[in-house]
Amino acid sequence: MGETPPFLADPGTTRESIMRATYLALCEHGYAGLTIQRIGESFEKSKSLLYHHYDDKDELLLAFLQFMLEEHEASVPETADGDAVDRLDAVLDAMLAPSLAAEHEEFTAAMVELRAQAAHDERYREQFAEHDRAFRDRLVDVIEDGIDAGTFREVDPASVAEFLSTTVAGAMTRRVTGGDDVAATAARDELDDYVDRVLLAED
Amino acid sequence: MGETPPFLADPGTTRESIMRATYLALCEHGYAGLTIQRIGESFEKSKSLLYHHYDDKDELLLAFLQFMLEEHEASVPETADGDAVDRLDAVLDAMLAPSLAAEHEEFTAAMVELRAQAAHDERYREQFAEHDRAFRDRLVDVIEDGIDAGTFREVDPASVAEFLSTTVAGAMTRRVTGGDDVAATAARDELDDYVDRVLLAED
Repeated sequence: MGETPPFLADPGTTRESIMRATYLALCEHGYAGLTIQRIGESFEKSKSLLYHHYDDKDELLLAFLQFMLEEHEASVPETADGDAVDRLDAVLDAMLAPSLAAEHEEFTAAMVELRAQAAHDERYREQFAEHDRAFRDRLVDVIEDGIDAGTFREVDPASVAEFLSTTVAGAMTRRVTGGDDVAATAARDELDDYVDRVLLAED
Repeated sequence: MGETPPFLADPGTTRESIMRATYLALCEHGYAGLTIQRIGESFEKSKSLLYHHYDDKDELLLAFLQFMLEEHEASVPETADGDAVDRLDAVLDAMLAPSLAAEHEEFTAAMVELRAQAAHDERYREQFAEHDRAFRDRLVDVIEDGIDAGTFREVDPASVAEFLSTTVAGAMTRRVTGGDDVAATAARDELDDYVDRVLLAED
């Protein structure tokens, strides 16, 4: 607990310091135990600054969610160049890594907890829907390029992208809620076969 | 809100009444807003009975988690007979239904919220790990039978079962946190192709 991912290691602005404190409090206490008091305990500056920037816990947590989703989107590798298979492999390799560094595992746990809030909070659901759409659209681009180049069969890009996004979301969830990394490793292996046998055009 | 799945509609014992009240309170307030007070408000009997059966909220919620996991396992169709492909299809059809009745959607949302607690609570993680193992083992049985019968190729049954479990978990999660049923529908469609082209033996 308490290790911060690189994007939070050295906050440059008050907003980033608040995001860092929120992240540390979430990792330590879980979402259900997250209070302004506890966020303040992880905050290096005057607690009054918390209230200066955010009216209440609700507003702070929604800003934190947006911040986390932006960081998560930034973690998807850029793959504008190259063969569609290599580009798809790069995304799947990054999202389904065999193991995670401690700070990345804590980040994943925090994301899984935030996502679960969407089950009962429309505002979280809207943000995750947008985030899911952005990830899916990046996969759609790769798949469409692969079809255009004759690398992939004439599959339905939206359906394939939704499916891959769903498997990635399941692996993220199971990795931190079921105890090990087998979920991601098995998904990566089987998606290799899926790409080979379902997506790849027969030469 | 407030519709109960069939297994909770008509509680026969005090324990079942407590589980029903906990379920209703979770659906209404979300996990983060779940208190003994609120569970008591959904409970038809004397609140003192809550404390008679469970020492504290922690103990009650762990019992509730176990109850929910048992119900979820009972919802997986029994498929002892028949062709391996038909048995696998039956499980995937049930777990990746195109849409859910309102009460089943609330059940799914409750499960997603409970699972997220495992990110910060070892006791929840152990229970979900056991639940995931039970589901995976049922899939392993079907896949092994399919290999033995020559229906499936010589795939790695554990890897395939982990992958399918992961996709199902992702679809459950995204269905209630991203706003629609497309995740499950797309996963079902693509898994059809995966079964056809990766699992099925060439005749």
